Amino acid sequence: MTSPRRGYECGPWELRWRGLDLEELQRTESTFALSNGHIGMRGTLEEGEPRGLPGTYLNGFYEQHALPYAERGYGYPEAGQTVVNVTDGKIIRLLVQDEPLDMRYGRATTHERVLDFRSGTLRRTTDWISPTGRTVRVSSERLVSFTQRAVAAIRYEVEPLDDDVQLVVQSDLLANEPVETEAGDPRVAAALKSPLNAEFSWADGYRAVLVHHTAVSGLRMAAAMDHEIETPSGLRTRIRVEDDLARLTAAVDVPKGQRLRVTKFLGYGWSTQRSAPAVRSQVEAALAGALQTGWDGLLAEQREYLDRFWDSADVEIDGDPEMQQAVRLALFHILQAGARGENRAIPGKGLTGPGYDGHAFWDTEAFVLPVLTYTMPGAARDALLWRHSTIDKARARARQLGLRGAAFPWRSINGAECSAYWPAGTAAFHVGAAIAEATVRYLAASGDTEFDEQHGTELLLETARLWLSLGHHDQHDGFRIDGVTGPDEYSAVTDNNVYTNLMARRNLREAAAACERNPDVAAMFGVDATEIGDWRAAADAMTMPYDELLGVHPQSEGFTQHAVWDFASTPAANYPLLLHYPYFDLYRKQVVKQADLVLAMHLCGDAFTAEQKARNFAYYEAVTVRDSSLSAGTQAVLAAEVGNLDLAYDYLGEAALTDLHDLHNNVRNGLHMASLAGAWTAMVAGFGGMRDHGGRLSFAPRLPGELNRIAFRMCFRDSRFEVEIHPGETRYRLLSGSPLRLTHHGSAFELGTEPVHLPIPRLTAPPWPEHPAGRAPIRRHPERIRRNIEQES
Amino acid sequence: MTSPRRGYECGPWELRWRGLDLEELQRTESTFALSNGHIGMRGTLEEGEPRGLPGTYLNGFYEQHALPYAERGYGYPEAGQTVVNVTDGKIIRLLVQDEPLDMRYGRATTHERVLDFRSGTLRRTTDWISPTGRTVRVSSERLVSFTQRAVAAIRYEVEPLDDDVQLVVQSDLLANEPVETEAGDPRVAAALKSPLNAEFSWADGYRAVLVHHTAVSGLRMAAAMDHEIETPSGLRTRIRVEDDLARLTAAVDVPKGQRLRVTKFLGYGWSTQRSAPAVRSQVEAALAGALQTGWDGLLAEQREYLDRFWDSADVEIDGDPEMQQAVRLALFHILQAGARGENRAIPGKGLTGPGYDGHAFWDTEAFVLPVLTYTMPGAARDALLWRHSTIDKARARARQLGLRGAAFPWRSINGAECSAYWPAGTAAFHVGAAIAEATVRYLAASGDTEFDEQHGTELLLETARLWLSLGHHDQHDGFRIDGVTGPDEYSAVTDNNVYTNLMARRNLREAAAACERNPDVAAMFGVDATEIGDWRAAADAMTMPYDELLGVHPQSEGFTQHAVWDFASTPAANYPLLLHYPYFDLYRKQVVKQADLVLAMHLCGDAFTAEQKARNFAYYEAVTVRDSSLSAGTQAVLAAEVGNLDLAYDYLGEAALTDLHDLHNNVRNGLHMASLAGAWTAMVAGFGGMRDHGGRLSFAPRLPGELNRIAFRMCFRDSRFEVEIHPGETRYRLLSGSPLRLTHHGSAFELGTEPVHLPIPRLTAPPWPEHPAGRAPIRRHPERIRRNIEQES
Repeated sequence: MTSPRRGYECGPWELRWRGLDLEELQRTESTFALSNGHIGMRGTLEEGEPRGLPGTYLNGFYEQHALPYAERGYGYPEAGQTVVNVTDGKIIRLLVQDEPLDMRYGRATTHERVLDFRSGTLRRTTDWISPTGRTVRVSSERLVSFTQRAVAAIRYEVEPLDDDVQLVVQSDLLANEPVETEAGDPRVAAALKSPLNAEFSWADGYRAVLVHHTAVSGLRMAAAMDHEIETPSGLRTRIRVEDDLARLTAAVDVPKGQRLRVTKFLGYGWSTQRSAPAVRSQVEAALAGALQTGWDGLLAEQREYLDRFWDSADVEIDGDPEMQQAVRLALFHILQAGARGENRAIPGKGLTGPGYDGHAFWDTEAFVLPVLTYTMPGAARDALLWRHSTIDKARARARQLGLRGAAFPWRSINGAECSAYWPAGTAAFHVGAAIAEATVRYLAASGDTEFDEQHGTELLLETARLWLSLGHHDQHDGFRIDGVTGPDEYSAVTDNNVYTNLMARRNLREAAAACERNPDVAAMFGVDATEIGDWRAAADAMTMPYDELLGVHPQSEGFTQHAVWDFASTPAANYPLLLHYPYFDLYRKQVVKQADLVLAMHLCGDAFTAEQKARNFAYYEAVTVRDSSLSAGTQAVLAAEVGNLDLAYDYLGEAALTDLHDLHNNVRNGLHMASLAGAWTAMVAGFGGMRDHGGRLSFAPRLPGELNRIAFRMCFRDSRFEVEIHPGETRYRLLSGSPLRLTHHGSAFELGTEPVHLPIPRLTAPPWPEHPAGRAPIRRHPERIRRNIEQES
Repeated sequence: MTSPRRGYECGPWELRWRGLDLEELQRTESTFALSNGHIGMRGTLEEGEPRGLPGTYLNGFYEQHALPYAERGYGYPEAGQTVVNVTDGKIIRLLVQDEPLDMRYGRATTHERVLDFRSGTLRRTTDWISPTGRTVRVSSERLVSFTQRAVAAIRYEVEPLDDDVQLVVQSDLLANEPVETEAGDPRVAAALKSPLNAEFSWADGYRAVLVHHTAVSGLRMAAAMDHEIETPSGLRTRIRVEDDLARLTAAVDVPKGQRLRVTKFLGYGWSTQRSAPAVRSQVEAALAGALQTGWDGLLAEQREYLDRFWDSADVEIDGDPEMQQAVRLALFHILQAGARGENRAIPGKGLTGPGYDGHAFWDTEAFVLPVLTYTMPGAARDALLWRHSTIDKARARARQLGLRGAAFPWRSINGAECSAYWPAGTAAFHVGAAIAEATVRYLAASGDTEFDEQHGTELLLETARLWLSLGHHDQHDGFRIDGVTGPDEYSAVTDNNVYTNLMARRNLREAAAACERNPDVAAMFGVDATEIGDWRAAADAMTMPYDELLGVHPQSEGFTQHAVWDFASTPAANYPLLLHYPYFDLYRKQVVKQADLVLAMHLCGDAFTAEQKARNFAYYEAVTVRDSSLSAGTQAVLAAEVGNLDLAYDYLGEAALTDLHDLHNNVRNGLHMASLAGAWTAMVAGFGGMRDHGGRLSFAPRLPGELNRIAFRMCFRDSRFEVEIHPGETRYRLLSGSPLRLTHHGSAFELGTEPVHLPIPRLTAPPWPEHPAGRAPIRRHPERIRRNIEQES
């Protein structure tokens, strides 16, 4: 969509913004962020200002601070963690004759930025007339390397357009740059002022290094830069360094028709252990590699890496160009968040902004890892390795809470619990089930027995132990899990949350199976047959409340007896509700922030009949407000399953456009990784009907009315294959690897070297469900959208 | 009991501590505190040190401070309030020859302090040998006047015992004295450092005045002192004043056999409105009155006031001297807390210490006001007037929470909510029911139609409105009140708390009745017949969950299905549980901090059958740990009702001795007013079987085995009467006023001028209930206790 209001232009393989809009800078900085999962750089302009929020992040690099409580309680986390805006190496300032390039002054005749999903770079072209009338063209291209994890690079070119001109370029490393913060919204990250203590600085020639450490968390980081400069004539450079600033200054007179080209190579590293000389060596070694590869080499590697990714992961949509773009953007950012995390978390915002303090949540395992598992399984493995690396902290937390096994944190950077509000934090034990589920999914999809033995079984058995100690067998009604918070954050501390109980049941059974197939691992952790028997007994007796009167499942005990939220009297401005109503009122009423029972029907769909799903879906549609970005993707999946394809398409739109349209009005703080993942899930699990219950892949594809074709690619075990949905027919094609057993609309078939074409059964669409007043998803009409695009272009 | 470990000596009308025990100073400072409900003075020594916690309080005088939250939420209170240790006028320092009297040095051959329940004074006698061998006798007597609300006075005498001696006395007003604080325990008041800003100071002759104000709350206070000095010969005095100190210094040579006598008169006042000159005038006027009355006059008035009180309120216990003392001490401190509050709250600790930040809770209405209503109804009226004076804040709070009517605060000094943990604060809406119940009780006991019209009906209708907006009619099971916290603080945010629902039902019905008898008031607040009908319909449909399988009432929906706390594995050192286990675990298990369903069976006993009461009582005994001081008194009442008289006596012991034996290890921060009230309740509602359902007094007296006689006095309407329980017989006697209709063990009778003697029916005691391991109340054997006393004395 090229709506002038939004600014983005539509293109299948890129995201382009033409013109400069100061108001929109912050959110484009998020969508234009580059990352490889280790280094993250927001899409600020090279000249530093104007800007929204600058931001350079190193995954896992945080500062610690005390969490304040007016009334303390036992077991409250004492220390918070906040991602640090580290030394900024993106900055290249320019003096044109004697005027600094600042787009708030003078005039830009051309200005555009393009995020290219295939080259993996952010390009910029600006033709700028200075206040005194000098015209230059500034072109830049920037990458954070997927192949060289510690490296980023920027090519920066300036060309006089009307006359010879003197140019001065200042290329900086800047630590502790001032950052504006917002207060009042609990979702916005707490600010940290000057978090970096200078420890070492050095510069020589075109190269400089700054080493800093944090005061409380005691982490140490280094940033280094080196440069190649191509210029027509007499170049004069100087490099100098202070505690928080390293600067290479290059002055040159450039004749019209020629240009100044600066290539800036950046190396970043951090460590909990290594000394200042060691982290300095680390980043200088990274620079050496980058210089050896060179700019063109880095570009080529980046392209090759992305070609491989799209070959395994692409999703094609014929008939809705904006959606095509949005879904590829989503996959691109998920790749950026997870590609090279390597034993670090995938935060809720990736490395695109400071939102949620840079914390990782259950979002990673529940929403992001399914995408990575089937598109880039190595990245899913890495993310699970991070979780596993925190298991001692999770065991200690469980002990502190009086429980067995492992209690993984609700929000964290280093694995220790940082949630200062326990009803939404500690009590949300379902994070453990998401980790177990992601483990089981990864194991089934990869067949990675080494991971199973060394990490997976341990994750499964420690999460299972948590459930057994958290629940109890009751004489009334089986095995209960009381006092927990499910996915829906507008309820808390409830009994027998259906999602939690079903996921715990699966966790218990999978742990039993894992211990039986890895008896040595089981023995190492003291699991015996009695314990395995206890897990199975608890699983078999798991309570699943049901409201006989209404014929639906309450998402937790008693939910359907609560008052329904007065949606009719709730003005649109009062959403999200949590900013306008007290928790006490949200918790005790039927109002759902995000899919909870509906998520249970997705992930544990085999525990419900088709009729139950239809009734439950309609019931929860009427009370779900989607104040969370975690919801639309899941609602799309169930809408598609019960046959509401148009509604599913609307939800796909919401999930995919959450960040592009800034639906939650907070994209300036970073992208919503889980919502981006939800777009993929809506496509593959929604319209593709993909399910992986019991580790077996099944499909039930359906094409929404206004699309001509959907195709998506997936990895499973050593195979890659494509599913292509046409009106009335699905075409399955093996791209590489061994034949696969799959299921199509309930019928198993074998996919070998020959494509398999199977008919799509006719669908009887159910009635359109009711939605809370004003909270139905925006209706999406691709046909009309396409016409608009044609008119505008 | 004269156990040397405890230090207190037994006496029917006094509390005496002989000897000095530095470790025990803090708690004796609480038990020896003097107060009239307006001024409170902890029982520190005149010389200021050694001391535990100094403390002088003015009811309602607080400083405000921001409440910190690591994660904010809508509607969280922003401002906390903390009682201020105001200008200390208790201090009279002494120099003996050239050595300061400090009991940590030299040697005390005699030291004792006596709180006298009939004179209403604290007396002290100390014979002290200074390090260089001078011996003096220091005697003091101190009072906070019940008759002159702004006045306190100290008589201080020094007598040389072995030789002539030079004495220097420094009598101070000291503001901002440094106070030690403890951290880590959420129950301990947050400290405020130097809360008083100096505004005016003046001194002349024997008189001085200090005026201060608080920085944030903007309250202004004045303290003034004047003196009378009697001395044998040449007295030399000097008075001087600084911002935070006024000091009268008197030097005199006293021959052996003569003495120095200083009488110090203190005036205190504070205001939100008045200027410094005005509050100064106020306290100087108070001094003028005090000087006019004189020390002997103040003593006489105090005695007369207390004689009247004991005439209406005394409880006599024959057969257990320690209990006799404890119950009178309890009544004395309740009187001190409530006597002259006059439109100010009765805080949870009275004015005896800084505990709970000086906040008032529902304790006042639910536990303290029943005592005052039947012993000193004017004080009950005053306390309700305070509540009524905050009703606009409560209405605003209700609006903020999206509710109608009035939402009174969980904890407050000025009427604004100060609870920073909403599941135990905001959600505990039952505070409204306690206020309504106290109103109804006061109206029934007093017949005060003026209060009814001007305040009572408004309190009832606004609390009723809250319930109607808080609950809803559900198609499943009637009118529900979901997501609230009942009295038991080891559960929170539950559905259909039986106590809350039953109390709300009564509140709704009483509001309907009040509006019908005061149609003008109803009209003024816009109550029409429809609204009254809605109240009655909600009351009639009120849900009361019942567990058919176990045959008991769950205290809230689902409670009896939760896991029972593992008492056997809980070490004694881990009580109170809230300091050793997370809320999440306490909330989701069957473990009860304080009577909840059992309190419902006391206050709404007419909603249960006798058999239900017996079954419920036994069930909840097994899971109630009494980590709260609000519990034992109520458990005594129900134990007595179901026939467990010995158990009731044990609980009486716990309630009455909570502070004397420091059972909760926090008496240093102040006395537990509700527990002291619980001692009275255990006597009158427990052994007396007094109930006031429907505003009618009934009794079902029973004498526990080891007592010979119980007698208690009560006020009802314009009458006073006595109930005297003997083995096998109860004697009712009208002391003054009109005849009364009463009920004895279910049979109505009229009590006129002739005493009525009625037999006590035989009792079949039920089985002894189970208790959580290690949490049964201490068994009480008065016979053995009496023998110990005889041996020791």
